[in-house]
Amino acid sequence: MFKLYYAPGTCALASHIALAEAGAPYTTEKVDFKTNQQNSPEYLGINPKGRVPSLVTDRGILTETPAMLAFIAQSFPQAKLAPLDDAFAFAQAQAFNSYLCSTVHVAHAHKGRGYRWATDEASFADMKRMVPKSVGASFALIERKMLRGPWVMGETYTICDPYLFTIAQWLEGDSVDLAALPKVADHRKRMSERPAVRKALAEQQV
Amino acid sequence: MFKLYYAPGTCALASHIALAEAGAPYTTEKVDFKTNQQNSPEYLGINPKGRVPSLVTDRGILTETPAMLAFIAQSFPQAKLAPLDDAFAFAQAQAFNSYLCSTVHVAHAHKGRGYRWATDEASFADMKRMVPKSVGASFALIERKMLRGPWVMGETYTICDPYLFTIAQWLEGDSVDLAALPKVADHRKRMSERPAVRKALAEQQV
Ligand SMILES: N[C@@H](CCC(=O)N[C@@H](CS)C(=O)NCC(=O)O)C(=O)O
Ligand SMILES: N[C@@H](CCC(=O)N[C@@H](CS)C(=O)NCC(=O)O)C(=O)O
Repeated sequence: MFKLYYAPGTCALASHIALAEAGAPYTTEKVDFKTNQQNSPEYLGINPKGRVPSLVTDRGILTETPAMLAFIAQSFPQAKLAPLDDAFAFAQAQAFNSYLCSTVHVAHAHKGRGYRWATDEASFADMKRMVPKSVGASFALIERKMLRGPWVMGETYTICDPYLFTIAQWLEGDSVDLAALPKVADHRKRMSERPAVRKALAEQQV
Repeated sequence: MFKLYYAPGTCALASHIALAEAGAPYTTEKVDFKTNQQNSPEYLGINPKGRVPSLVTDRGILTETPAMLAFIAQSFPQAKLAPLDDAFAFAQAQAFNSYLCSTVHVAHAHKGRGYRWATDEASFADMKRMVPKSVGASFALIERKMLRGPWVMGETYTICDPYLFTIAQWLEGDSVDLAALPKVADHRKRMSERPAVRKALAEQQV
């Protein structure tokens, strides 16, 4: 049995969807960002980084979305969520997820978490203004060069898909024009029709 | 035969060391940051993100350090650079590398690449001032909670080690006090004595 710590509207949704797609046995526990529960002593005992997601397994706790997604794919091979028998194809999927994690998610985080990298209110405002452009440029590259269609890796659904879907949920809030991203928009629509996606979203609304 | 695109002093060193550790057949090609070669049409044809590293393989081109490191480990299993038969242990290694990529490297990048996330000179200066603190806090967590010793994952050398070594090379330039990080300092010393590390560093000095 796995236990996923999540907060609604965060990158934790990617792992949540992957668990549902895999048919994994899991429970979820909400971390309340409004009361800064991610930095409570209890939660820091689970994840000393003070972030979600965290995945409790019977071997120990895992963090970091790309690592958790690959772990879910490897733990439930029958769900075929990654090209596990092809190191090159697996690396391509991992590279996509690493880009989302290290570049796209980080660009987005400059909207509300500027204090991670600066101290002045003026800098926060400057960073916030840049988000439509920086997130927009990342998604333009995804649209043009990375998203093969219909799924990220082409004909086969993989762990890249819930992660892209999750981060694409932020586009409106980041003031990026979805009309300029028809493949991303189509992907989002296709994803939102999957039972596992509906299940995860419903479980986060409790 | 692999071909690694790198620039000296960058995160590309991690993959370079891993190739050497694996005994992989490879050549290297330097990308000249001084002339902004990473954004030349030729290089953007190789890596449309305009970054190093990129790894040319006979199947295609790979980017993103964590993905490349896992690919090298999986392609040369006899080098035992990752716990390939244990999905949980593999995920722990991947989580460490994902943290380096998405948090530690990104904190460092605010010193010289502030224009990725803001536009004002004052914001760049503010970001620059924060780097010792943000990189320092990440490394304090690595020291306290993540680096098991003597290697990152404990008794066994893995793909986490060249990556940590590479990013730890930036600590002095980021004005982080190495004296407060004895395990990281010990790891760096131990790493710098390995033949593969010397080989990679020498190859980057040509
Ligand atoms: N690299 C991590 C990043 C995790 C992360 O930044 N999560 C955000 C939510 S999307 C968070 O927990 N933020 C809480 C905070 O910064 O206090 C991953 O991909 O899992
Ligand atoms: N997430 C990428 C980041 C790559 C990256 O940012 N590389 C830097 C060097 S450490 C670069 O190429 N910078 C050139 C530029 O920003 O123009 C990875 O881990 O491989």
